[in-house]
Parts: sequence; structure tokens; C-alpha cells
Amino acid sequence: MIQYPASINRLIRNLSKLPGIGEKSAERLAMYLLQAEKNQVFELADSLKELKERVRLCSQCFALSDEDLCRVCSDPARDSKVICVVEHPVDMVAIEKSASFNGHYHVLQGLLSPMDGIGPDDIRIRELIERVSEGGIKEVVIATGTNVEGETTAAYIHDQLSGYHVKVTRIASGVPMGGELKYVDQVTLRKAMEGRHAI
Amino acid sequence: MIQYPASINRLIRNLSKLPGIGEKSAERLAMYLLQAEKNQVFELADSLKELKERVRLCSQCFALSDEDLCRVCSDPARDSKVICVVEHPVDMVAIEKSASFNGHYHVLQGLLSPMDGIGPDDIRIRELIERVSEGGIKEVVIATGTNVEGETTAAYIHDQLSGYHVKVTRIASGVPMGGELKYVDQVTLRKAMEGRHAI
Repeated sequence: MIQYPASINRLIRNLSKLPGIGEKSAERLAMYLLQAEKNQVFELADSLKELKERVRLCSQCFALSDEDLCRVCSDPARDSKVICVVEHPVDMVAIEKSASFNGHYHVLQGLLSPMDGIGPDDIRIRELIERVSEGGIKEVVIATGTNVEGETTAAYIHDQLSGYHVKVTRIASGVPMGGELKYVDQVTLRKAMEGRHAI
Repeated sequence: MIQYPASINRLIRNLSKLPGIGEKSAERLAMYLLQAEKNQVFELADSLKELKERVRLCSQCFALSDEDLCRVCSDPARDSKVICVVEHPVDMVAIEKSASFNGHYHVLQGLLSPMDGIGPDDIRIRELIERVSEGGIKEVVIATGTNVEGETTAAYIHDQLSGYHVKVTRIASGVPMGGELKYVDQVTLRKAMEGRHAI
């Protein structure tokens, strides 16, 4: 990279630290940015800084938010009596995109994983129990992933909430839409069979 | 994108303006940057601004530079009597990487293209003639591309320099190294045949 002036090398080095961007792509991006409008590049730089300065976790549900309460928690049109529990903010975004849920969320910020030393106190389970114990919650939908950690976490939360007057549900497992049965693994097929319903 | 807080949407929008980065990749990058160290993100933002604030064109050869004179023009070990003419700064970088040239450069910042209304006054040809007319230059190597514009520009420069006591050369055309003849186009093969030399 000695062929470029120091400031270009600096940008290439920083860009190539991003996931999925190798040195070649970083070089190409730097050349593009060199020729781009100064305004566009400064806007990108400022939005990077704003990201780190403004984005925090919602004080109620721990979703990503620019404000103390996130967009969902502060929306009076959402049903605050149903809470969907997810692992990461991106999972919440995925569910929001599916437009299949109109309640509130609770973002655990991780999953139980004894192997990695992650216990109940390391993720936001205590805060979930507190929200439920304050009353007014009718249903908790556990929408963690269907891997070992996701299932363990779901079972643990179900167990912890058993003392409260709240319905605890789990999202359905089964054959993904558009999927062909021959490509679906046996565990998923068993889940799909167990979860069969009248049509 | 309504699912994210405004500051994340802003970053995703700006990232997805970059070439080769679609909305999905921009989202993934934003999620990475959210979890990255604040230092790393600020360093990236600062290097973007520095790029637009520091990088200019070398006052002698119009290469990219942080200083008034670029690294090559200010290096006493380089042969200032030979000038390699290229279209863009990236072409100069490519030649530098090949470590095949120890002279100075002249970066035209474009090629003649009458169809696009780009004439001799729109690129740095006048400055090249001036450099040659000041004397001391023994050879001008024209390393523009081998497309129509590159050849036209090379011919024009050769013509303009005919009155000066300077050797004007053109980089060789032929079969790329590692190339199989059956995949090489006819024009390139003809050039390779014309340029044949004793081994």
C-alpha cells in the first residue's frame, strides 16, 4: 500500500477492517470516495459518529433506540400486554419486517450458554421477570432461535415464569415456507409433524 | 428500514450509496459497527474526513498526494528524465506495484474523447508539453489504455511532442502473461505478432 499517500492508506486500512471488505474492495471504495462529493463523504463520516453517540438500548425492552424508550415501547398503538422475547436487536427487526406481531419486545442481548460461561445474570432475564411481576402482561412469546442455546434459554424462561399468571408461548417450528421436504432435516420434520394442525 | 432508530437508518442509507454495497450489506455493516469499539468507528470517520481534506493532486505530475509534490516527484532516487503518462492515479499505482518503472509520472486525469466532448484542454496535456519544453526529459512513455480513447490520446501526445527532442514510446501490447492463445482476441494477437522479438 506504499504507493498511495498516507491519508489514503489510512482509509484503506480502516475500511478493510470491516467484515466482507478485503483490501482490494477497500482500495476500490477509497478511489470512489476520493472522487465523490465532499458532502457525501462528510455525511457518511458524521453518521458513523452519530451511530456511536446516539444509539443506546431502550430502558424498558433493550432494543436499539435513539431515545430512552424505543419506537415500539413508546407507541400507544402497540399491545403492551404481549411481550416477544428475542436474542438480539436484529431478531426484533426481522420480526418487525414480517409485520406479524403488534406487541412489545424484550431483547435479551444474548442466550444462556453454560459452555461459554453465560448465565441468567449475563443476559436480560431478570429484567423480563420484573416486567412480568409488575403485572399487566398476558402473554410472553419466546422467539429465541431453535438451536441448543435458544431452546435452553426458552426452557429456562418458561420455568422462571411458571409462578406468574402469564401465558408463555414459543414460536412454531416446522418446514420453512417454500421448502421442499426432501431437503428438510429430521429434527425439523419431527417438529413439523408434532405441530400439525387441522386445515 | 423503519424498524431501526433514525441514526441507524441514516448510516445504512449512506453506506448503501457506496459501490458494491447493497441495502443488505449496509445493514450488516451497520450492525457490525454498532458492536465495534467506539475508537474504531471514530477512526474510520476521521480517516474519511482526512481523505477529503488532505488528498490533492501533485503540482508537478497530478498524482494523488498529501503534499504539494507527490512521493515520486520528491524522491531524488527516481529518474526525472523519464516520464510515464497515465490516465488515472490508479494506473500509476498499478505500475508502481509492478515495480517496473523508476521514472516520474504524468497523470492526465482523463483521456481524449471527442464523443464525450473531452478535448486536449480538458486533460493535463498542456502541462505535459510544458514539462517537456522545459528540457531535461529524455523519454516519454505513454501508458494509456489500449482502448480507442487510450490509443487516440497516445497518438495525439506523440504528435504534439514531435517538435521536441524527446523519445516518445508506447507500452507493449500482446498476450497477457498466463493467457491461453485460444482465448485472446484477434486484435491483441495481431499486436503480439507485430511486436514479436528475438528470444
